[in-house]
Amino acid sequence: MPGSVQSIERAAAVLRLLAAAPNGLGVADLGNALGLAKATVHGIVRTLHQVGFVEQDHSGAHYHLSDAFGRLGETYLDPNELRSRAINWADSLASRSGEVVRVGRLVEGKVVVVHHVFRPDDSDQNLDVGTTLPPHACALGKAVLAFDAGGTAKPRKLDAYTTRTIIQPAKLLDELAAVRAKGWAGEFEEHTIELAGIAAPIRGLGGLVVGAVGLTGRIERICDSRLRHRTDLVTMVRATAEAIGRDLREER
Amino acid sequence: MPGSVQSIERAAAVLRLLAAAPNGLGVADLGNALGLAKATVHGIVRTLHQVGFVEQDHSGAHYHLSDAFGRLGETYLDPNELRSRAINWADSLASRSGEVVRVGRLVEGKVVVVHHVFRPDDSDQNLDVGTTLPPHACALGKAVLAFDAGGTAKPRKLDAYTTRTIIQPAKLLDELAAVRAKGWAGEFEEHTIELAGIAAPIRGLGGLVVGAVGLTGRIERICDSRLRHRTDLVTMVRATAEAIGRDLREER
Repeated sequence: MPGSVQSIERAAAVLRLLAAAPNGLGVADLGNALGLAKATVHGIVRTLHQVGFVEQDHSGAHYHLSDAFGRLGETYLDPNELRSRAINWADSLASRSGEVVRVGRLVEGKVVVVHHVFRPDDSDQNLDVGTTLPPHACALGKAVLAFDAGGTAKPRKLDAYTTRTIIQPAKLLDELAAVRAKGWAGEFEEHTIELAGIAAPIRGLGGLVVGAVGLTGRIERICDSRLRHRTDLVTMVRATAEAIGRDLREER
Repeated sequence: MPGSVQSIERAAAVLRLLAAAPNGLGVADLGNALGLAKATVHGIVRTLHQVGFVEQDHSGAHYHLSDAFGRLGETYLDPNELRSRAINWADSLASRSGEVVRVGRLVEGKVVVVHHVFRPDDSDQNLDVGTTLPPHACALGKAVLAFDAGGTAKPRKLDAYTTRTIIQPAKLLDELAAVRAKGWAGEFEEHTIELAGIAAPIRGLGGLVVGAVGLTGRIERICDSRLRHRTDLVTMVRATAEAIGRDLREER
């Protein structure tokens, strides 16, 4: 990629013009100011709208900077949006795998479960939605931590839940590097004895990891005879994460 | 352009990650988080740096959001930058045209002269740098006003300087639309009797108009026998504006 990216330069110019126009601007105004065709401006403005940087007024004719643009560092994806995009895919994963499926996101250093599909049998199960999990001790958490660039979400203290929980910071960093390399995270009795799990990150617009989806079950069902995570389940989980991400990235 | 622009989505993701990382992030951190190759991230970050949204730390290893990013609506181009990029081109225009050349930018509804090249003869001339001109009454001002999307820089009151000054708001709007269509602005005794001028907008990164360059002289030299602005001078002025803009948009 040489020098710089023209569409980013144009998007920056649009943001500057909108920042200077308290009453908002239309596509034609922006096109006139920048000497660009309306179709080009439309593509830029639509993208800025999708990523949440600009908003439309009620008439749809004018754009202005969004309030959220001033609070860029905060998580921007509405958890309801993540849940609603994940529901069908998570259901499908649960019925094909026969296991519990959960969707989670990082909030203040914890994994918050935003969606939970029961294992498709008649056993007693508790709904986990809204509960939190320790990110270093579960597949769902490791799948998100691995892509947390700022390290701001990293847990301060690595509590042990079993003898297998990773409690050394250096070992956790190695594990997260491995997760990045593989593209998925495994869990093996690190949170609960006899349980294993598999999770994969969900990427929103621009590749930003906004959460993870994973399944959890008894070791003998999640792992093969050599105690490795079953590759068919890994493939299913990764495809589910991909599908949810694709839905999230589509035009809203 | 379908749906949305991928590089803008990625730039938005980078801005969000940087906003959430008080200590800044390196190219590798960003690449890991977004699942992008380092070369791709480098192109994005370099562009965000050029448009003034991000800064590098002293070591050059980490990027963080710039202070200016929080004050997007303010003019971002340093007038010294505009002047230093314009000097050689403005000198050349003055010697080829034999006329006074000025470079100006809009500041709070006035054109501020940031560079001034004397007419290359031995006449007495005053240095205009730092003085202001009424934007509606000169070519330099109309060249910039025509691309002022927000209308925030428009003069509130259209004072008359000669009988030819445009003082009706509707007529000024028509004139500015004509400037946009032609790509340059003419002046004919609108500011000073017996003087005419030609100016063209200077476009910075993303197409943002950051100022204008123009020449002024006696009507019989600037206009042809039918009192039209000489096309050879118009071509020279536009080429000069293009050249200054190209220098400004180059990697700094």
